[in-house]
Amino acid sequence: MNEFLDLDEVQLDIGRRDRCGLPEVIYGEGKSKETILKTFEAFAEKNIDAFATRIDAEKGDFLQQHFAAKGLALRYNQIAKTFRLFNTLEAKPVGKIAVLSAGTSDAPVAEEARETALWTGAEVLFIQDVGVAGPQRFQAKLPLVQDSDVVIVVAGMEGALPSVVGGHVACPVIAVPTSVGYGANFGGLSALLCMLNSCASNVLVVNIDAGFKAGYAAGLIVKGKHKNGGG
Amino acid sequence: MNEFLDLDEVQLDIGRRDRCGLPEVIYGEGKSKETILKTFEAFAEKNIDAFATRIDAEKGDFLQQHFAAKGLALRYNQIAKTFRLFNTLEAKPVGKIAVLSAGTSDAPVAEEARETALWTGAEVLFIQDVGVAGPQRFQAKLPLVQDSDVVIVVAGMEGALPSVVGGHVACPVIAVPTSVGYGANFGGLSALLCMLNSCASNVLVVNIDAGFKAGYAAGLIVKGKHKNGGG
Amino acid sequence: MNEFLDLDEVQLDIGRRDRCGLPEVIYGEGKSKETILKTFEAFAEKNIDAFATRIDAEKGDFLQQHFAAKGLALRYNQIAKTFRLFNTLEAKPVGKIAVLSAGTSDAPVAEEARETALWTGAEVLFIQDVGVAGPQRFQAKLPLVQDSDVVIVVAGMEGALPSVVGGHVACPVIAVPTSVGYGANFGGLSALLCMLNSCASNVLVVNIDAGFKAGYAAGLIVKGKHKNGGG
Amino acid sequence: MNEFLDLDEVQLDIGRRDRCGLPEVIYGEGKSKETILKTFEAFAEKNIDAFATRIDAEKGDFLQQHFAAKGLALRYNQIAKTFRLFNTLEAKPVGKIAVLSAGTSDAPVAEEARETALWTGAEVLFIQDVGVAGPQRFQAKLPLVQDSDVVIVVAGMEGALPSVVGGHVACPVIAVPTSVGYGANFGGLSALLCMLNSCASNVLVVNIDAGFKAGYAAGLIVKGKHKNGGG
Amino acid sequence: MNEFLDLDEVQLDIGRRDRCGLPEVIYGEGKSKETILKTFEAFAEKNIDAFATRIDAEKGDFLQQHFAAKGLALRYNQIAKTFRLFNTLEAKPVGKIAVLSAGTSDAPVAEEARETALWTGAEVLFIQDVGVAGPQRFQAKLPLVQDSDVVIVVAGMEGALPSVVGGHVACPVIAVPTSVGYGANFGGLSALLCMLNSCASNVLVVNIDAGFKAGYAAGLIVKGKHKNGGG
Amino acid sequence: MNEFLDLDEVQLDIGRRDRCGLPEVIYGEGKSKETILKTFEAFAEKNIDAFATRIDAEKGDFLQQHFAAKGLALRYNQIAKTFRLFNTLEAKPVGKIAVLSAGTSDAPVAEEARETALWTGAEVLFIQDVGVAGPQRFQAKLPLVQDSDVVIVVAGMEGALPSVVGGHVACPVIAVPTSVGYGANFGGLSALLCMLNSCASNVLVVNIDAGFKAGYAAGLIVKGKHKNGGG
Amino acid sequence: MNEFLDLDEVQLDIGRRDRCGLPEVIYGEGKSKETILKTFEAFAEKNIDAFATRIDAEKGDFLQQHFAAKGLALRYNQIAKTFRLFNTLEAKPVGKIAVLSAGTSDAPVAEEARETALWTGAEVLFIQDVGVAGPQRFQAKLPLVQDSDVVIVVAGMEGALPSVVGGHVACPVIAVPTSVGYGANFGGLSALLCMLNSCASNVLVVNIDAGFKAGYAAGLIVKGKHKNGGG
Amino acid sequence: MNEFLDLDEVQLDIGRRDRCGLPEVIYGEGKSKETILKTFEAFAEKNIDAFATRIDAEKGDFLQQHFAAKGLALRYNQIAKTFRLFNTLEAKPVGKIAVLSAGTSDAPVAEEARETALWTGAEVLFIQDVGVAGPQRFQAKLPLVQDSDVVIVVAGMEGALPSVVGGHVACPVIAVPTSVGYGANFGGLSALLCMLNSCASNVLVVNIDAGFKAGYAAGLIVKGKHKNGGG
Repeated sequence: MNEFLDLDEVQLDIGRRDRCGLPEVIYGEGKSKETILKTFEAFAEKNIDAFATRIDAEKGDFLQQHFAAKGLALRYNQIAKTFRLFNTLEAKPVGKIAVLSAGTSDAPVAEEARETALWTGAEVLFIQDVGVAGPQRFQAKLPLVQDSDVVIVVAGMEGALPSVVGGHVACPVIAVPTSVGYGANFGGLSALLCMLNSCASNVLVVNIDAGFKAGYAAGLIVKGKHKNGGG
Repeated sequence: MNEFLDLDEVQLDIGRRDRCGLPEVIYGEGKSKETILKTFEAFAEKNIDAFATRIDAEKGDFLQQHFAAKGLALRYNQIAKTFRLFNTLEAKPVGKIAVLSAGTSDAPVAEEARETALWTGAEVLFIQDVGVAGPQRFQAKLPLVQDSDVVIVVAGMEGALPSVVGGHVACPVIAVPTSVGYGANFGGLSALLCMLNSCASNVLVVNIDAGFKAGYAAGLIVKGKHKNGGG
Repeated sequence: MNEFLDLDEVQLDIGRRDRCGLPEVIYGEGKSKETILKTFEAFAEKNIDAFATRIDAEKGDFLQQHFAAKGLALRYNQIAKTFRLFNTLEAKPVGKIAVLSAGTSDAPVAEEARETALWTGAEVLFIQDVGVAGPQRFQAKLPLVQDSDVVIVVAGMEGALPSVVGGHVACPVIAVPTSVGYGANFGGLSALLCMLNSCASNVLVVNIDAGFKAGYAAGLIVKGKHKNGGG
Repeated sequence: MNEFLDLDEVQLDIGRRDRCGLPEVIYGEGKSKETILKTFEAFAEKNIDAFATRIDAEKGDFLQQHFAAKGLALRYNQIAKTFRLFNTLEAKPVGKIAVLSAGTSDAPVAEEARETALWTGAEVLFIQDVGVAGPQRFQAKLPLVQDSDVVIVVAGMEGALPSVVGGHVACPVIAVPTSVGYGANFGGLSALLCMLNSCASNVLVVNIDAGFKAGYAAGLIVKGKHKNGGG
Repeated sequence: MNEFLDLDEVQLDIGRRDRCGLPEVIYGEGKSKETILKTFEAFAEKNIDAFATRIDAEKGDFLQQHFAAKGLALRYNQIAKTFRLFNTLEAKPVGKIAVLSAGTSDAPVAEEARETALWTGAEVLFIQDVGVAGPQRFQAKLPLVQDSDVVIVVAGMEGALPSVVGGHVACPVIAVPTSVGYGANFGGLSALLCMLNSCASNVLVVNIDAGFKAGYAAGLIVKGKHKNGGG
Repeated sequence: MNEFLDLDEVQLDIGRRDRCGLPEVIYGEGKSKETILKTFEAFAEKNIDAFATRIDAEKGDFLQQHFAAKGLALRYNQIAKTFRLFNTLEAKPVGKIAVLSAGTSDAPVAEEARETALWTGAEVLFIQDVGVAGPQRFQAKLPLVQDSDVVIVVAGMEGALPSVVGGHVACPVIAVPTSVGYGANFGGLSALLCMLNSCASNVLVVNIDAGFKAGYAAGLIVKGKHKNGGG
Repeated sequence: MNEFLDLDEVQLDIGRRDRCGLPEVIYGEGKSKETILKTFEAFAEKNIDAFATRIDAEKGDFLQQHFAAKGLALRYNQIAKTFRLFNTLEAKPVGKIAVLSAGTSDAPVAEEARETALWTGAEVLFIQDVGVAGPQRFQAKLPLVQDSDVVIVVAGMEGALPSVVGGHVACPVIAVPTSVGYGANFGGLSALLCMLNSCASNVLVVNIDAGFKAGYAAGLIVKGKHKNGGG
Repeated sequence: MNEFLDLDEVQLDIGRRDRCGLPEVIYGEGKSKETILKTFEAFAEKNIDAFATRIDAEKGDFLQQHFAAKGLALRYNQIAKTFRLFNTLEAKPVGKIAVLSAGTSDAPVAEEARETALWTGAEVLFIQDVGVAGPQRFQAKLPLVQDSDVVIVVAGMEGALPSVVGGHVACPVIAVPTSVGYGANFGGLSALLCMLNSCASNVLVVNIDAGFKAGYAAGLIVKGKHKNGGG
């Protein structure tokens, strides 16, 4: 369970799936494509579904060519900048995670959350551009959302959407502030502070632009719920 | 029009009513009660309706006793900490300003906005505790609000209410962040940033806890509108 | 479901239990004891289990005397500053929430989380003072923690404990930064930023000192899980 | 009135003109030119005057070529980065909005305010480079400004001009801080804080570089005023 | 010239008058009254004019009683919180320093600047409450100010007055931000940033509430000027 | 070595002396005097020299009375707010730690560093008030300082002293920023940033006001050095 | 005296030399080269010595070619990014300004201060790389510096040099923080705060990287001094 | 000992080795390659081992070609961006410094620390990617680390590793925050604050990304220890 692979500049946490419920995810920023490749191959050898975030187009092409040549099933989402290698048969999805975004410009973060949630094995409902300035848009979609196990809400600028969503649903809301905006947005600080101070009691927060973490934690909540027999 | 009274530690701007549409308002913080009294008396002599903010209970009692003894009409609001001296006959209110607060704890700031708006000569609709966590509360009040000339929205914590209100009305919204909250609220910074970054285009912002400025500017908008013959 | 009670300065969200899974919780800061009492009575009339946070000793005594005189079951926790009124029979707890604190000085926030989690109907495991400076302390308690449905980790100063816990468990971790510390702690900012930047993927964050929100969201996760038949 | 168009990644708020007095404005940043085009066409189909901000030269050229080819009236302002499509006959402007800038470097923001104000249907008086370091410059222009319905003041660096203007006019002043400056300007924070703390009571503030919001709100104030019969 | 007195917890810089043009000034905050007394006595023995800032009422009374009993000439200004002991004959003042304040609430800082400037041996022109919201007030006083050798401008809130003054005078302006204000004033940060970003090129800045440093540096400028024979 | 005592709200790290070279130190802030007493007694039972910081006068008196009554050797320093219980015979000090302070007002932090360094078993040279404004003061003391094993420099305000000291000595300098100052000192931030950015390469930094940490780490450096046979 | 030239996007302050002692200086950032040229020509026509800062290489070449072709005397300093056009005969310099820099990397700011001071008509002593980490370097240069009328000290990183210089000279010190550094330097904030909190009483501060403002104000001090007959 | 070389834009501190134990290190950022070369040559002439940081690839190539042509021993580390010139025979390393990094992306800073520590003459143990999210990784390496004289811990994101390491070792820990991360990492602020607030008492901190300073100070600690006869 505490097993790890010593690849010199990377200590690969092979035991995390057993210890923490899901395998380690590779954070691609600041790593060379060779290091990332080496890591994916180590996972493949252990038959672990491998998933990486922050994979830019150049790294994505490199990985796609390499693994496609080997005949492996893979999925690269260029907006999300995620890369996924299917080493196990994909199971029927359990649970339902709704991913909502406040604006079109939030797409990269929302897509990252979606891809991650899919990788954890959940079904994902994906709805974009339902921010509070046009309140009728979220109202129209609400019935689709209400039976979700978790709702992920991605929003930049003032970040008010999670508070509004939180007031309408009976499940946890994971709020993802984005750095979308300008001026006194300060790189996402405005949305982050708004979400941390939400008066809706069911709002949990992750780092700015951390679509991945929202998807991961949502997947874990769904897994726990459905392992326990639910439906 | 550029007249002023030299009271040594105070240079009273007697000309402001003519120059700027409304008389100077006295900011009570950090001024002695003697200085405030002197200022009120100078206004009284000029037959100007005098108004002061940040008048704590002790100063309020002092002023009340002094001017009540002189038989002058006055109004001290202990929650708002405002003091008003009626030197002219009160005219029939023109225009309608709605003052909404997100939570009961925002009362001092909301009351300051209300008192100021009343002093400018407007009619005020006052609705408390309609924050976004219980969205049906604002929805229920919306019809009362929609024919306002200006809506003032007072909110602490995440400060999301102005964005929501802004999406439903066709008049300017003046957002007042309050320092109500704790933790990553940072003295009202969270609400302030949220409001500045509002994706509702009709939201204008004033300083944290500046109920007075919202009321004053709202009054000016209403004055301009109705001077032009509206109704 | 969208029902609310108009108590003038309070608009009581009576419909929240149906809409959001748990009733509205009263935030005691900045509200008068009369307002709080009025709110509790309204809940009592509706047979809703009422719960309030930020109830200082003076308000706590006032509420205790009032409701004890009426023969109602209640619970006031002076460290947590929470007040609870039992209007329904307490059900057998479902699910298990672990509440861990890094240091003894974090007790008020940890207790608030515990009380809230209990009020949501979960069983709570409560372990204090297992911060990272003495790592063997958490190691010794780990076996007790690992079968929890959710782990709440309360920590001030550098706020490193959630990252460490996150690396050992397969359920979501809700991290609560506290304002405990001094100097470059900046009122809890150090712990907050640490937790938001956690490299453990299962760490979700709430506001500084927001023990309540952690307990509430944890309760919601547990409720969702066990409603689905688990256990 | 709550109508919207579901364009997948965009939920177009077709009902905003009726609900909020002016149509939705497209924020171009972070949206592809195809998405923006699709949105403009949807507005055109509904005969709504469409307006977009943050349209860089490349997107601007693309839109110009597309709609010019269709024979539609349009206007692209390269400094303001605004694009406007005339779908209705332009009415005679009502009301007067003065747009003042403190320095020549503030031009992009001032131009954005001007274009937006024009789009709302107001007459615009545009005066540049009248900052406080050369006080005689604003003094000379003051007579032109004083009969405005609203004054928009755009300023970077220390952002002192709105306070000075506010002391001379009897209408609301909308202050727009810009990110012009260096060093302890911190991306416009200096001007923003200065404006929020203005001792002139008639100063309302929008986000840093938010020329658009100032123009929009000013237009709304003017619309409200002149709808009521003024002039 | 590098002489100092070792008083254990204080190392008194006896040589500073020769080295730096003016004697060391005692900063009273956080020092016991006994320590301050010991320091004053050491200066007295060396026939140095001693001056202390941040002397609260209790310490002020203690020092006054002690030195008055000894028949020494002294001056305690309770608003400025400065204490001065005359050990040398007061010379005829040379040079002229204008001290302007934006508002009545800035008095403690303005008075500290005045007292310090007087102690350096300059003549002081003291004008209060001429902030930019009532621009005619400063205009009226401008002729009195224009022949000053240095102008000290003390302002809180938005801190715009130094920029305005700087645009009218041909001598250096020393700007002193004060912590007067509320909300997004952040303890004087708004005024500080405004002054640092002043577009008036002749504005130099000192710390928030540092009336002392402004008076000291102004005195030094005047001393240098008049030592050179000026008039 | 990983031993700990479970005192319920405290998990006492009995094994730290073996694991980390020095026993656990008790942080008194936010702990009740009963909890602190219980901890001291547990250490006493194990014959471990116990040391606590942030012990205010009331707690100090309580501990002094309790342990004096038991005939135990103790030391309470009211400026440093440290309490020490001697459970082992004090050994001859090894190594030399210089503690320098920039100003008299830094005394509480400097004293905390001194007491902690003494408790670790080192000899301490203590010099106060040698800040950079009177540079001859530090120059005069330099010969006393140069043969130290570590120099601790305690400074508030601009925090420049460590850089100056660092340029003159051949041993590590531990810089302790203090919250002494006002205005743009922001609770010690100015000194902290100055020290972190020191161009002297031998300057290490601890938290604001963390005299304890400086003393502790200095003691550890000295211990390591002299365990290795030095002298 | 209040004369200005209306060049549409620029309102040129022709009267500043008379009003403020020195002509307006052109801030090149964000202005087109055509606008800058137009301004220089307007000054040339009025026989005013024109000076501009923030002139990058491209603009500098453009201006040089233009004015060299006209046979005008000019000076472009590529490190300082300043451009100067000599329209009047250069007078014999009066007064002495020392410009010191802490490190070689501060050169652009130090050069800007030097060029500006020269333009004001003073003699300049220029010494680089004498920061506090090698304290003997400044000590060696001190005798050259001590008879200056003003000392400008340019420093990045911790910004400690002005405090040290301030402790050795009897004239005003103008401290210029630079953005040189990394990490917790935060774009010059560390040096700025250090300088604002200097315990040397004769230290005045300007904006980060504002070599120009230091040179300008220093020139004004020197002018005032020597106008009065000094030497 | 206070010798320095005046190279005009650089004042080279030749005496630092004698005064401070190690020679001056060249900070390459913002210096031209010619200036850096001139400095290296001056050191070479004095037979001093020269070392530079922040040498990008272009400058590195230039130096390598120059000195390789002269037949000098050198070492350029492209990840660390350090350049070293061996002017003296390399002695047998004394003491042991462990350099740990939390993640692969921290490599540049960790390498800079390693190169600096090697240059000071110590033996270095280098272990990467042992952050707290996979706690078994550090546990596995702990036995290798425990006999170090100093441990340098390099970590970005939440920066929790130094606290964990500090709880397991009996020597000083020097924590180096890195700017690795995103969102609320704010350029390394999260890791910096976490480390400053560490509850492990043996943690000392340097600037963000300051691998150099950690290596330098660690070298100094080791030097002091082993000069004293240790082993």
